[in-house]
Amino acid sequence: MVEPNGPINIGSIARLCSNFDVNELRIVSPKCDIFSLEAKKMALKGQKYINNCRVFNSIEQAIFDCDLVLATCGRIDLSNDIECENPEVISKWISSFKVINNLAILFGREDRGLTNSELLFAHKIFNIKTSQDYPSLNLSHAVAIILYELNKCSKNTPQKDLKVFNLASSKQIYESFKDLEEILIRTGYLLEHTSFSKISKFKKFILKAKTSSHEINVLRGIVRQIKWFLNNSKGN
Amino acid sequence: MVEPNGPINIGSIARLCSNFDVNELRIVSPKCDIFSLEAKKMALKGQKYINNCRVFNSIEQAIFDCDLVLATCGRIDLSNDIECENPEVISKWISSFKVINNLAILFGREDRGLTNSELLFAHKIFNIKTSQDYPSLNLSHAVAIILYELNKCSKNTPQKDLKVFNLASSKQIYESFKDLEEILIRTGYLLEHTSFSKISKFKKFILKAKTSSHEINVLRGIVRQIKWFLNNSKGN
Repeated sequence: MVEPNGPINIGSIARLCSNFDVNELRIVSPKCDIFSLEAKKMALKGQKYINNCRVFNSIEQAIFDCDLVLATCGRIDLSNDIECENPEVISKWISSFKVINNLAILFGREDRGLTNSELLFAHKIFNIKTSQDYPSLNLSHAVAIILYELNKCSKNTPQKDLKVFNLASSKQIYESFKDLEEILIRTGYLLEHTSFSKISKFKKFILKAKTSSHEINVLRGIVRQIKWFLNNSKGN
Repeated sequence: MVEPNGPINIGSIARLCSNFDVNELRIVSPKCDIFSLEAKKMALKGQKYINNCRVFNSIEQAIFDCDLVLATCGRIDLSNDIECENPEVISKWISSFKVINNLAILFGREDRGLTNSELLFAHKIFNIKTSQDYPSLNLSHAVAIILYELNKCSKNTPQKDLKVFNLASSKQIYESFKDLEEILIRTGYLLEHTSFSKISKFKKFILKAKTSSHEINVLRGIVRQIKWFLNNSKGN
């Protein structure tokens, strides 16, 4: 959960974690008292998820060990080039892999969801089909629907024909782009005040291209080599 | 909703009605103030469902005009002969029909759900797959999942190959059995204190057999004729 501000939601979501055998609840910069009585009352037998939850200062830190990152997005003002898929499609896609170490699902703020740049941490983005007149789901209802849909597929797929999961992790992509942005600004390809949108486009491409762990390491190697060369040729 | 006792749940469910374009919220014997501020705060733009909700004294009255009645059941102490199906299967089944006038979904009490005899009002019963350790979903989360699943199928099925919906309505079945029970007690086939469980078995059979509207009317005609005969041969 990213910056949740309602104890009732936190408690409800802890209960859902228990209902669907989630491993761990992680919270980025909570905006309310996550240990409040209100939260615990809603959590019922899910209280252990609140007691054991891990709190982080950034999404980057919260997903540090996750191979696959998913996010939900209910905003209607979504940038056109952010591609959303329905939960069923994503759930079936996930169940086509042999093993995924630590799958993270990012849920945004009650009022504003996740920003466009936060959505770039996700390999895939869920969009739940709702009423055109009032599409905005309560946060915990979105969590209920996503966990239900992922749980449905989790044991249904035959073991044969499973693929090996080898997508570059969100952390790898994030770190590669920090280096890349730095050298592109340094060499004058990007200007500091416009770099964000250009880098975002490139990131979307990398996500869309289903870049593997190996491929992102090649890209990163190139970037590091150029950076090394720039540092060592300084003053030449 | 049958006997809800939490204003937060009522508000949350009103919001969900709005999120998934439900027609109407009906409440049977509420156990709390459904118009409380707490409920309205949770409902947000779904408040109109609370303001316009219809309150009934019995399930029978609440479903008086519904062709198809579904129910949810999360209880683990469920009688063995009550058959549950997963929401996806039921949703696909529903979307195989041309027109269904007034589909009702019964949701039970927060703590105890629906009783076995209340479940007999339903043509089909949903069971949502959850954790074995803590299967009990919050009421509004169950509503979210069911509405999501029904909404998913509602527009996806091609218009050709749709069947005509002609199942006997729950009200027809309920009323037929009231008459039937009466004559079976009167003729000595049933004893008053054991009639409930025997009638329940017969009802389950009628539901399982996908009895049509026409077929239940034939059954009802027979029962009425016997009743008429009994009344008129009295004293002979």
